[in-house]
Amino acid sequence: MTLPSRILEQAVEQLSTLPGVGKRSALRYALHLMKQDEPAVRDLSESLLRLKTDLHRCRYCHNVSDTEVCPICSSEKRQRGIVCVVENVQDVMALENTQQYRGLYHVLGGVISPIDGVGPSDLAIASLLRRVESGDPYPVEEVILALPTTMEGDTTNFYLSRQLRPLGVKITTLARGVAVGDSLEYADEITLGRSIAGRIPFEG
Amino acid sequence: MTLPSRILEQAVEQLSTLPGVGKRSALRYALHLMKQDEPAVRDLSESLLRLKTDLHRCRYCHNVSDTEVCPICSSEKRQRGIVCVVENVQDVMALENTQQYRGLYHVLGGVISPIDGVGPSDLAIASLLRRVESGDPYPVEEVILALPTTMEGDTTNFYLSRQLRPLGVKITTLARGVAVGDSLEYADEITLGRSIAGRIPFEG
Repeated sequence: MTLPSRILEQAVEQLSTLPGVGKRSALRYALHLMKQDEPAVRDLSESLLRLKTDLHRCRYCHNVSDTEVCPICSSEKRQRGIVCVVENVQDVMALENTQQYRGLYHVLGGVISPIDGVGPSDLAIASLLRRVESGDPYPVEEVILALPTTMEGDTTNFYLSRQLRPLGVKITTLARGVAVGDSLEYADEITLGRSIAGRIPFEG
Repeated sequence: MTLPSRILEQAVEQLSTLPGVGKRSALRYALHLMKQDEPAVRDLSESLLRLKTDLHRCRYCHNVSDTEVCPICSSEKRQRGIVCVVENVQDVMALENTQQYRGLYHVLGGVISPIDGVGPSDLAIASLLRRVESGDPYPVEEVILALPTTMEGDTTNFYLSRQLRPLGVKITTLARGVAVGDSLEYADEITLGRSIAGRIPFEG
């Protein structure tokens, strides 16, 4: 595809660096922007740059935040003794949307993956251990490991538990099982196996 | 979906104004940008803004261009007596990619659509008529109508032919028919009908 303009070409090139955006979609976005008013495009352009210049990471949980300490870490209504360890910011949003969890978070920023060259020092693991060890900002009684059930997630869980165990903190993990509304017939064996093994008292 | 930051929220809102981009994709893009280096995000941000500030439209054919007159209109190798009327910039790119067309273009910027409130005065029709009438920049012998075969495209074709006919210019349109490689069995009747009606001498 040859573009009639170097400026258009650059915009398309830049837009196609976004995840899952190919040249064709990038061109559609660029041509769409060309048709918009200048203030609208300026708003978009500036809001993207602000993601790098103005957005903070909470100094305790590393969740994205407009302030140095995020609203969750600074809220007095949360159970401050419980810290849920997640891979990324989206996981925090997903858990918050359930409105079932009232504790705090710790965003690792990834999982240990030797193939991708991600080791413990590339993740927010040291700050998690410091949080548990020092009780700063709040004493931690329980750490919930909520990392993905992949080889990398399991490796990270194992690594974390080895580091956390000596600190005398309670370590738990998410219940896994057949999803609510799913029929057993179509569940994969590993999930169904976990549902059976982790069965709980019936409340009826 | 509640986002943990107003800045992130604004970026997501802005990104989801792009065509076909929902909140979830916009969030993915924003979180991806957050992880990039600042210079990379600055490049993206600036290249988008340049689409409005630095990009020109060719004064003759209205195709996007880095210069006042586009490379096609200023090329001496093109057949300057032929003008192909298209809906948008993408159509020019598609035709250029065939490497079969050596004439010039005229980008209308849309088609007449009363439902969407688009009338002849919203399109680059006056400048097309002026081009044909005045012979500026080049005398026009043939106008090819290459608008989409929709109700709106047909309406626009009809309107243009009524305006162009008195100017004594030759008016043609694209051949429509079964695509190369497609089997007749699966072609829709209208397309197959046009293929039969517009049959051409066999060169074998």
